[in-house]
Amino acid sequence: MNTKAYAAFNDADPLGPHTIKRRHIHANDVAIDIEYCGVCHSDIHTAKGDWGRPNYPVVPGHEIIGRVKEVGADVTKFKVGDLVGVGCMVESCKECDPCNHGIEQYCENGFTGTYNSKNSKHGGITYGGYSDYIVVEEDFVLNVPENIDVKAAAPLLCAGITTWSPLRHWNVKAGDKVGVIGLGGLGHMGVKFAKAMGAHVVMITTSASKGEDAKQLGADEVLISTDSDQLKAHKNSFDFLLNTIPVKHDVNPYLNLLKLDKTMCLVGAIEPLEAVDGGNLIMKRKNLAGSLIGGIKETQEMLDFCGEHNIVSDIEMIDIQNINTAYERMMKSDVKYRFVIDIKSLNNA
Amino acid sequence: MNTKAYAAFNDADPLGPHTIKRRHIHANDVAIDIEYCGVCHSDIHTAKGDWGRPNYPVVPGHEIIGRVKEVGADVTKFKVGDLVGVGCMVESCKECDPCNHGIEQYCENGFTGTYNSKNSKHGGITYGGYSDYIVVEEDFVLNVPENIDVKAAAPLLCAGITTWSPLRHWNVKAGDKVGVIGLGGLGHMGVKFAKAMGAHVVMITTSASKGEDAKQLGADEVLISTDSDQLKAHKNSFDFLLNTIPVKHDVNPYLNLLKLDKTMCLVGAIEPLEAVDGGNLIMKRKNLAGSLIGGIKETQEMLDFCGEHNIVSDIEMIDIQNINTAYERMMKSDVKYRFVIDIKSLNNA
Repeated sequence: MNTKAYAAFNDADPLGPHTIKRRHIHANDVAIDIEYCGVCHSDIHTAKGDWGRPNYPVVPGHEIIGRVKEVGADVTKFKVGDLVGVGCMVESCKECDPCNHGIEQYCENGFTGTYNSKNSKHGGITYGGYSDYIVVEEDFVLNVPENIDVKAAAPLLCAGITTWSPLRHWNVKAGDKVGVIGLGGLGHMGVKFAKAMGAHVVMITTSASKGEDAKQLGADEVLISTDSDQLKAHKNSFDFLLNTIPVKHDVNPYLNLLKLDKTMCLVGAIEPLEAVDGGNLIMKRKNLAGSLIGGIKETQEMLDFCGEHNIVSDIEMIDIQNINTAYERMMKSDVKYRFVIDIKSLNNA
Repeated sequence: MNTKAYAAFNDADPLGPHTIKRRHIHANDVAIDIEYCGVCHSDIHTAKGDWGRPNYPVVPGHEIIGRVKEVGADVTKFKVGDLVGVGCMVESCKECDPCNHGIEQYCENGFTGTYNSKNSKHGGITYGGYSDYIVVEEDFVLNVPENIDVKAAAPLLCAGITTWSPLRHWNVKAGDKVGVIGLGGLGHMGVKFAKAMGAHVVMITTSASKGEDAKQLGADEVLISTDSDQLKAHKNSFDFLLNTIPVKHDVNPYLNLLKLDKTMCLVGAIEPLEAVDGGNLIMKRKNLAGSLIGGIKETQEMLDFCGEHNIVSDIEMIDIQNINTAYERMMKSDVKYRFVIDIKSLNNA
């Protein structure tokens, strides 16, 4: 039997319909009927070959929500009908130190991405969530709380965990002054999580209107980062900074905002930053760090927390036929804050 | 009564003889007959006005060893004849959070430097260790173990504590693989301390001959940082990197060497670094940090450790009359590894 999907076939043309042969369900596998899939900037970069030539055709999508359709003989954690999610990873070695510590995103042998990755166990290339069906090992399938808005839960699987993981790793707690730099798919989740953790949340942005938007999402305060008086007023005052800016930028004005011994964590900019001032780190023993998505265990903790606190993403629903328009709008940062594909639309041939 | 000293009188001319009126000994003060003073790169930068115009005449020197000559009425920690040291700080507010936690180098109100600083309590400008006498509050005076080579202990007060503090702060322990980047006044102390802490010490240098020198100092291994095969062989393997390079440089090849979750700490480069690759931090949750000298409590711990492990600096003794030649040689990195002034030479008028 085949799976309906949308794929990129080269780096220039838009995405279009595609058919994939369904993969066999092994003993530890869970087969999922996909209902919703969030659209991440990584999807665009991969589809367009920005990160090197991918294995075309590419079926992107790693913010997957669906219901269990079938389980392999040895599956114990899921049953048919369960509401489940799949994020950026579908396999890892399970033998290295990071895997043994539940941080599979740092697997020493390299995790298998949900799409455009070589499937070391089952052969072939992985295909993602712009599709009506996926088969994934149960260890990489998440339980999604039934009480939250299911379609708006999709972006939790990447944008959510990418911001949750560093907030937890650097022990953000009630009363901490936390700055979220940049308001997009990642930043808006950072604001919601930090607020729900009890922090005093400051949206740090170049845009006054984004500042107002952030207040709607729960931010307590806004710092306009182009205003030197505001930067001065907040100098050496933050317990943690979550930097979601996805492009090259000057981190020095932000490092100035940190308290002694505190950390700014990058989650967006994987390219070279502008020159970091060594003195800015030395004079108050500050840290500049980075963090990559999150492990399966902490992804489940995040989803459970979202169930308890009724947290989901702010989304704009689209049909799969509008994916190329969505890509164009995302490249202009024109979305609040994540597009989610209604996978039912795959049937509107 | 007056104190003999050597001072810089402007940014162009060499240092020369100077006379200072001795400051009054207050109840908590310790008066010290200086015997030895190490020569730090900061002395040159300050004397020459590289960091802004100083308060000429400047008497540099913040690696001071001497014996207590006199104590104020309320002094309890020291008695006449004690072997003592003074480092980079002679006062701090003693009220802020960092002061209360024994990290006066991060005093929120700014510590008073041993030279060229406004003396907030007693007025005037502070004068450093290129001199036969100094008066310092007892809280900023250190006990120096009598069993170590006294003259070679002087550089412990700055080069020593600057490397000791980050090694302790980031919990370097027996069995850790620690890289010391750069072999100079700071780097050679980093090698000695990390080795004495039980670490597997790798000297990271561009120079094969410095590598050999580092082995003499206790390094277990040498990594030539211009050799891409060696960099590759050590990728993701270090528990801590102590980066003592004092000038702008590319930190990315070094960040590549760190294990997941580990830190490279800058202690030398207070200027802008070359562009840091964000991905290099994100992909394995690495940290780039900085550290400034060390607090009084940990300086005492370091000196006690040096007494127990018989650790001192490798030095070249000079008479004060040769200070300008020493500066010239330091600017060419021509010293193994610290000049120390024999203060008796001040009498050779």
